[in-house]
Amino acid sequence: MSRSFIASLSAMLALPLTALAGDLRQDANAVFAPITPAAVSGAVKNNELTPAKIELGRELFFDPRISRSQIISCNSCHNLSLGGVDAGSTSIGHGWQKGPRRAPTVLNAVFNVAQFWDGRAEDLKTQAKGPVQAGVEMNNTPANVEKTLNSIPDYVTQFKKAFPSDAQPANFDNFAKAIEAFETTLITPNSRFDKFLTGNDTALDGAEKKGLRLFLDKGCASCHGGINIGGNGYFPFGVVQKPGADILPVADKGRQAVTKSASDEFVFRSAPLRNVALRAPYFHTGQVWTLEEAVALMAADQLGVTLTADETAAIVAFLGSLTGEQPRVEYPVLPARTKDTPRPQ
Amino acid sequence: MSRSFIASLSAMLALPLTALAGDLRQDANAVFAPITPAAVSGAVKNNELTPAKIELGRELFFDPRISRSQIISCNSCHNLSLGGVDAGSTSIGHGWQKGPRRAPTVLNAVFNVAQFWDGRAEDLKTQAKGPVQAGVEMNNTPANVEKTLNSIPDYVTQFKKAFPSDAQPANFDNFAKAIEAFETTLITPNSRFDKFLTGNDTALDGAEKKGLRLFLDKGCASCHGGINIGGNGYFPFGVVQKPGADILPVADKGRQAVTKSASDEFVFRSAPLRNVALRAPYFHTGQVWTLEEAVALMAADQLGVTLTADETAAIVAFLGSLTGEQPRVEYPVLPARTKDTPRPQ
Repeated sequence: MSRSFIASLSAMLALPLTALAGDLRQDANAVFAPITPAAVSGAVKNNELTPAKIELGRELFFDPRISRSQIISCNSCHNLSLGGVDAGSTSIGHGWQKGPRRAPTVLNAVFNVAQFWDGRAEDLKTQAKGPVQAGVEMNNTPANVEKTLNSIPDYVTQFKKAFPSDAQPANFDNFAKAIEAFETTLITPNSRFDKFLTGNDTALDGAEKKGLRLFLDKGCASCHGGINIGGNGYFPFGVVQKPGADILPVADKGRQAVTKSASDEFVFRSAPLRNVALRAPYFHTGQVWTLEEAVALMAADQLGVTLTADETAAIVAFLGSLTGEQPRVEYPVLPARTKDTPRPQ
Repeated sequence: MSRSFIASLSAMLALPLTALAGDLRQDANAVFAPITPAAVSGAVKNNELTPAKIELGRELFFDPRISRSQIISCNSCHNLSLGGVDAGSTSIGHGWQKGPRRAPTVLNAVFNVAQFWDGRAEDLKTQAKGPVQAGVEMNNTPANVEKTLNSIPDYVTQFKKAFPSDAQPANFDNFAKAIEAFETTLITPNSRFDKFLTGNDTALDGAEKKGLRLFLDKGCASCHGGINIGGNGYFPFGVVQKPGADILPVADKGRQAVTKSASDEFVFRSAPLRNVALRAPYFHTGQVWTLEEAVALMAADQLGVTLTADETAAIVAFLGSLTGEQPRVEYPVLPARTKDTPRPQ
């Protein structure tokens, strides 16, 4: 049942079936890829990655003065101490408003096919402009961000270094480019799974290898493949049966709001699974608090498979092997405000 | 006028008058002291400072899961990227409630005579327990904090290392001790003013030296003295005349709420002035946004002195020399929640 389901799904999605048999490493390498520096630079377009730009982006990522209230930074919801997400379900923003979806992780986000749960931003520099302006998130305006940046001489100097050919470098587009540049450093290489992929047989234990085999054979990898173990395509949520309304509320049609296509109802970008063990709660609504529940739900609702407790445990063990080296970031010392800096609102 | 006022105030407060004449460095060293490692260890009582405790404290300081919402950490209001404070006036806490006072800086707080604007906590480990439980701040309970800490195995292990003689080390008291231990590392030595105090004549320029002389002679140092250039005693706000109700609202009687003494009406701990240039807005209400306004207000309302624009500028220049080396802190990677970790509320 499950294999035939995968076969038809794979055919529909034009995915290879090589993961269904043979040597475990070979099968895994046919579907996944380890994180390498070359993979990062190949994933960024129209934004030269320079040290000056990355350093500026680090400061901006942590600067709460980018928000209207001046207490919410990018890191508030994409918290680098917590796997690149916040600790709650859907994020809390300006005025304690709850956003409609859980913050996706910023870790390894550079590898995703597009950004946001519905892929509405083609890249990280486009994504970075969204939450700044969203009323339920940072609730700011590009003009106010630019006024803030230009009121702080050290920022102006840094923008000049990062964007030397621009006449007015401290602008909203360059803000977003600097954030993207910093975010390309937020990768988590050398997970035990990466080590297994690149030849270390003992990097995974028996349960994890069993879990990897199940992940391939049951069909999980059909949606969660590639370098980011997901994040590489769009798929309907609830292929076999729809989860409850707490997990998949009817009002949020996912990618249909982007494409306006009837076939995109409840379609979302598949979740990238690197470091997933660090990032409960799960799914775009953040209503599932354990990996065991999340795996069982995915198997049942996406694949029509009822996993045994042992199988679920093995897949969860495998997912734990996807936790890589977390980025070590020095918390920035930000340049001080001046009398011209807009005040919090 | 101002000298006689200082003389009487100094007599009242039993402060030395040596700052009123003579060699600038000698006069300054009679009132202030540079930051040294010995000064830190001498300022902490009943809490052995060990690397394990400091490291644990660093993680707890940045962990938002200590709050009921799980989005507010110590660092949210005592932001190490912004001089140890937040960017607004009075802090915003649980449910977007505004607290009654501005967050005091955590930088060099170990040197203060006591903690909070009204000195109601005798030390940092006592202080650390306050905001965690305050309804308008983190809105949590000691029991829930302990449940959270004990639900995360890596935290339990770290508490055992930091408090090896305790049977149940992951408790609220030890949480506060670990925070205090970390906070003793949040000092800012080697400001240009420290360098001047310890013998470097060219560490301050002409305007800054003029400002220091004025700071001593006009009487500012009567309340803002010691190693932290303030934070060393309690003084009435509005000695000569009361500032407006936006700056000194009648409902907040300051230290009177602690001591119940009539003479403590509108008495506050003097603000420590190290790094003050990084920390606008000023005063416990955070309604004054520039140092120029703050200095002029203090001179007029505390000392009965009307400063010239040049004098104000010189004192502001001197205050700028109090900015020290900011602590360089690696942003922690926190241990992941488990199924037993309390959920955000």
